[in-house]
Amino acid sequence: MKLGLVGLGRMGSNMRERLRDRGHDAVGYDPNPEVSDVASLEALVEVLPAPRAVWVMVPAGQPTREVIGQLSHLLSPGDLVVDGGNSRFTDDHVHAALLAEHGIHYVDCGVSGGVWGRQNGYALMAGGDETDITRLLPVFDALRPDGERADSFVHAGGVGAGHYAKMVHNGIEYGLMQAYAEGYELLAAEESIQDVPAVLRAWSQGTVVRSWLLDLLVQALSEDPALSSISGYTEDSGEGRWTVEEAIAHAVPAPVISAALFARFASRQDDSPAMKAVSALRQQFGGHAIRRAAPAGIA
Amino acid sequence: MKLGLVGLGRMGSNMRERLRDRGHDAVGYDPNPEVSDVASLEALVEVLPAPRAVWVMVPAGQPTREVIGQLSHLLSPGDLVVDGGNSRFTDDHVHAALLAEHGIHYVDCGVSGGVWGRQNGYALMAGGDETDITRLLPVFDALRPDGERADSFVHAGGVGAGHYAKMVHNGIEYGLMQAYAEGYELLAAEESIQDVPAVLRAWSQGTVVRSWLLDLLVQALSEDPALSSISGYTEDSGEGRWTVEEAIAHAVPAPVISAALFARFASRQDDSPAMKAVSALRQQFGGHAIRRAAPAGIA
Amino acid sequence: MKLGLVGLGRMGSNMRERLRDRGHDAVGYDPNPEVSDVASLEALVEVLPAPRAVWVMVPAGQPTREVIGQLSHLLSPGDLVVDGGNSRFTDDHVHAALLAEHGIHYVDCGVSGGVWGRQNGYALMAGGDETDITRLLPVFDALRPDGERADSFVHAGGVGAGHYAKMVHNGIEYGLMQAYAEGYELLAAEESIQDVPAVLRAWSQGTVVRSWLLDLLVQALSEDPALSSISGYTEDSGEGRWTVEEAIAHAVPAPVISAALFARFASRQDDSPAMKAVSALRQQFGGHAIRRAAPAGIA
Amino acid sequence: MKLGLVGLGRMGSNMRERLRDRGHDAVGYDPNPEVSDVASLEALVEVLPAPRAVWVMVPAGQPTREVIGQLSHLLSPGDLVVDGGNSRFTDDHVHAALLAEHGIHYVDCGVSGGVWGRQNGYALMAGGDETDITRLLPVFDALRPDGERADSFVHAGGVGAGHYAKMVHNGIEYGLMQAYAEGYELLAAEESIQDVPAVLRAWSQGTVVRSWLLDLLVQALSEDPALSSISGYTEDSGEGRWTVEEAIAHAVPAPVISAALFARFASRQDDSPAMKAVSALRQQFGGHAIRRAAPAGIA
Repeated sequence: MKLGLVGLGRMGSNMRERLRDRGHDAVGYDPNPEVSDVASLEALVEVLPAPRAVWVMVPAGQPTREVIGQLSHLLSPGDLVVDGGNSRFTDDHVHAALLAEHGIHYVDCGVSGGVWGRQNGYALMAGGDETDITRLLPVFDALRPDGERADSFVHAGGVGAGHYAKMVHNGIEYGLMQAYAEGYELLAAEESIQDVPAVLRAWSQGTVVRSWLLDLLVQALSEDPALSSISGYTEDSGEGRWTVEEAIAHAVPAPVISAALFARFASRQDDSPAMKAVSALRQQFGGHAIRRAAPAGIA
Repeated sequence: MKLGLVGLGRMGSNMRERLRDRGHDAVGYDPNPEVSDVASLEALVEVLPAPRAVWVMVPAGQPTREVIGQLSHLLSPGDLVVDGGNSRFTDDHVHAALLAEHGIHYVDCGVSGGVWGRQNGYALMAGGDETDITRLLPVFDALRPDGERADSFVHAGGVGAGHYAKMVHNGIEYGLMQAYAEGYELLAAEESIQDVPAVLRAWSQGTVVRSWLLDLLVQALSEDPALSSISGYTEDSGEGRWTVEEAIAHAVPAPVISAALFARFASRQDDSPAMKAVSALRQQFGGHAIRRAAPAGIA
Repeated sequence: MKLGLVGLGRMGSNMRERLRDRGHDAVGYDPNPEVSDVASLEALVEVLPAPRAVWVMVPAGQPTREVIGQLSHLLSPGDLVVDGGNSRFTDDHVHAALLAEHGIHYVDCGVSGGVWGRQNGYALMAGGDETDITRLLPVFDALRPDGERADSFVHAGGVGAGHYAKMVHNGIEYGLMQAYAEGYELLAAEESIQDVPAVLRAWSQGTVVRSWLLDLLVQALSEDPALSSISGYTEDSGEGRWTVEEAIAHAVPAPVISAALFARFASRQDDSPAMKAVSALRQQFGGHAIRRAAPAGIA
Repeated sequence: MKLGLVGLGRMGSNMRERLRDRGHDAVGYDPNPEVSDVASLEALVEVLPAPRAVWVMVPAGQPTREVIGQLSHLLSPGDLVVDGGNSRFTDDHVHAALLAEHGIHYVDCGVSGGVWGRQNGYALMAGGDETDITRLLPVFDALRPDGERADSFVHAGGVGAGHYAKMVHNGIEYGLMQAYAEGYELLAAEESIQDVPAVLRAWSQGTVVRSWLLDLLVQALSEDPALSSISGYTEDSGEGRWTVEEAIAHAVPAPVISAALFARFASRQDDSPAMKAVSALRQQFGGHAIRRAAPAGIA
């Protein structure tokens, strides 16, 4: 089918290619003319046959809000917008309500797969009305991996449920990565282990911990066996935070996911104010030696 | 090759079958005559050609200690004992020293794969001398999954390193399981998610969190969609505790693995003494209502 | 000074008494006529001399919002409202803006001390404009413990800063309580400790861990040495959740406060969905025995 | 009474002074002749009247083991040794057994109070036989704060129970410090809080979180309001580790104490190997930008 695609960054342009490979007429718009198929959002809307379907693939928050605001004026009743970015599920309700004022339908869709999705297919978690989801099934089927639809696609519920499912997916991802990372650090600290990358590689088949993330860690260690070129400074991109916030809102204990999130926060601190306080306390009550902070200007 | 196998429980008997399927002459001894190939440990030793290789597959701790003690008297210099159970790596040094007094060699081998190993093959992490490991390679190759040896086998280091690697594997396993479990609980608590098992199944392909453990969770949920037949009471079998102890010994932060371990401890408490103390404190300072404990005899 | 007090629950009525003891003319209104000094909120406003000061001491959320909404219509420009309840600091900005439309000033004030405050005095954390804070100093001085003002009172910042400081206070409180509780549980689990309450009491003087909370725990244990009459079911009242949310918003690692919060969540679960998932996984991969959930109707 | 004191570091010499102030004849031995009252351990034993009492106050582990080994040869049946250091409770059983071979009695005593104990008194947790404890009561009474004995002294149980109680005390201490530290960091990160030290000081009286540790933090902040002279690098001295190990041994959940311990471990890492692994994984699956590690030689 003919589909508009807004946002041609790494994810968007890969998805355009995959859709075209599978016979869909994906027309992309991006402010960057080097990658864009059309000159403007208006032009994109014009080339699409009504009822139109436009898949938005831009960063969550303000960028997505802006595109959806513009589309609310450009599209017509009966058209359909999909937000395939990493929006917070709470934004979906705002977007859906705004578009509904203009008779425009809305579907949110969490997309997983990263840079590998172009080749392997993307897993998709969609939220919205049954009829809108059904209308998009050919697109979903083209984007997802081959095989049974239920193994890589779910209509998770009403508007917002797709991003909710994707948010939880990413929260789990934080916990999984941290579990492997703690095990890696312990192996690396133990002198009796002669070849840490070889141990992790030996878990690739037959073990309980085998997974795609493990394969990626084996790959990373094959390129850099002690990860000496990589800093531990680690960003977080929202979903981990939202998952813990939702756990709190639902009174669900989430010690593992929150620990993984806090480890990222800590990784970005040059020094920990909290640990300065602990160190100060130890000095106060025990006369324990403290380490002086380095003078400014000296690392 | 001809190999003695001591202990024919679920793991041992499955391994005997896999070895036989792949052309090895595995002779098993178990105190249970219904599964044993020979009448006694002495008889097992007698039927093996020198230099003998005996693989011990009995529960860690006292049972393994006893078998190895007996073998130290029955075997001859140049023979080789493999401990394939879930022994703590510190036991390996004791076992190796005891056997070395009699000129008997020792290899420790962590075995992963559970009930699926019979069919899929077992991942193997071995510790010991290079020559002993080399001698056992045909056995390792038969037990492990087909494919590249390095994907399911590692000679991790000297005596103890195999069980050390297996211990860390299991520690990671605790963290992975808990991460999925927290995500599952959050999805189940969120009313907008219409079909929790369907969401987890949709992560089977293409996602970052796809793994064998996820496949198993999908399988479990297909059998019992709300896990209503299963209690949350969860045992732990040693490796998780040892992993945290080793993390402490090496000053390695392990918030995720320890959180997963503590969640198991908590799952086995009818009521938490710690939370009684917190509840008592809230009553003391705030006059907050507390919940009275149920009288004895009433659940 | 003459002060209106809205809300005469445990906290409000205690504060009224303390204010009167210290020479202030505190007039209280409560919907319950048995404790109220006046018949209505209107009547309260009428008896106060302009510029009026009204201290609101009702539950956070909807009840506080309603009272402040009513006061916005009843009070006059130049009057002053204090919210002394446990409101989220984000509510303060809403309340201040609403009242400002009517020329009414607003101060938020976190109050700590619980049922002991009547006698010991309340610690106070205030947010608002300097002139409004200054106007209220006689009230603050009457409510707080005797001694240096800075030991129990702070003007923490603009509107919202008082409740923010109180929120963090309560978050810390969660962590402190859980630390004592974990230690208590460990002592109670160790057979060599003959008299757990005696050990905790011996920490009352001279130790690093001495505190008011410890005194309260000693008191609770003197009344019920094994806390056998108290259930571990523990409520949480908002500030702990908000503290973790703020930690997330500021990328501040908060493993201890979040662990304390999650322990409360877990204390209220009959069974843990997460641990059901872990237990199901262990059964899937290892054939580990699981505990069947009790049939419905049997605890 | 006349008492021998071995080890005149900060703690030992302070305790000697306090004992002398309160009328006891404390004779100290230390390898450092500038602080020692006698020339040798032999000389110390000679000046004490039988049955002797010798209080050992040297670092835990090898130093304590050595002194106790020497005393086992120098003392006589009926003499009594007290280990007042921070030994692991498992060492007490070894020490007691060694001394018992020579008919020498043994008491372990956890001592809390740090550099403030000289003036305020030390809290004491003792383990051993009732008759040995009774014999030492005059010494305990001199060392502990004035007031009721039960508020600062406990005979916790048999040999080892004193150090066990002290170990748990210190584990709790870790948790308390971390709770204050997290709250401090959050206040410092929140721009609406104008004066963080003033907020903490305002909690000194009347609040639920008031404690001696809070007083010390207020003191530290009065000297250095942003703790800018102090590094977050924080040592740990054993008891925190042992507490978590005991929690594991007793299947007691200890999320708060372990989180506090792990935060210290992390504070001492220049970079986190675990977070390098997480960062490497993010790069692998998402093409997320990573931060390159600084080249060697450049901080």
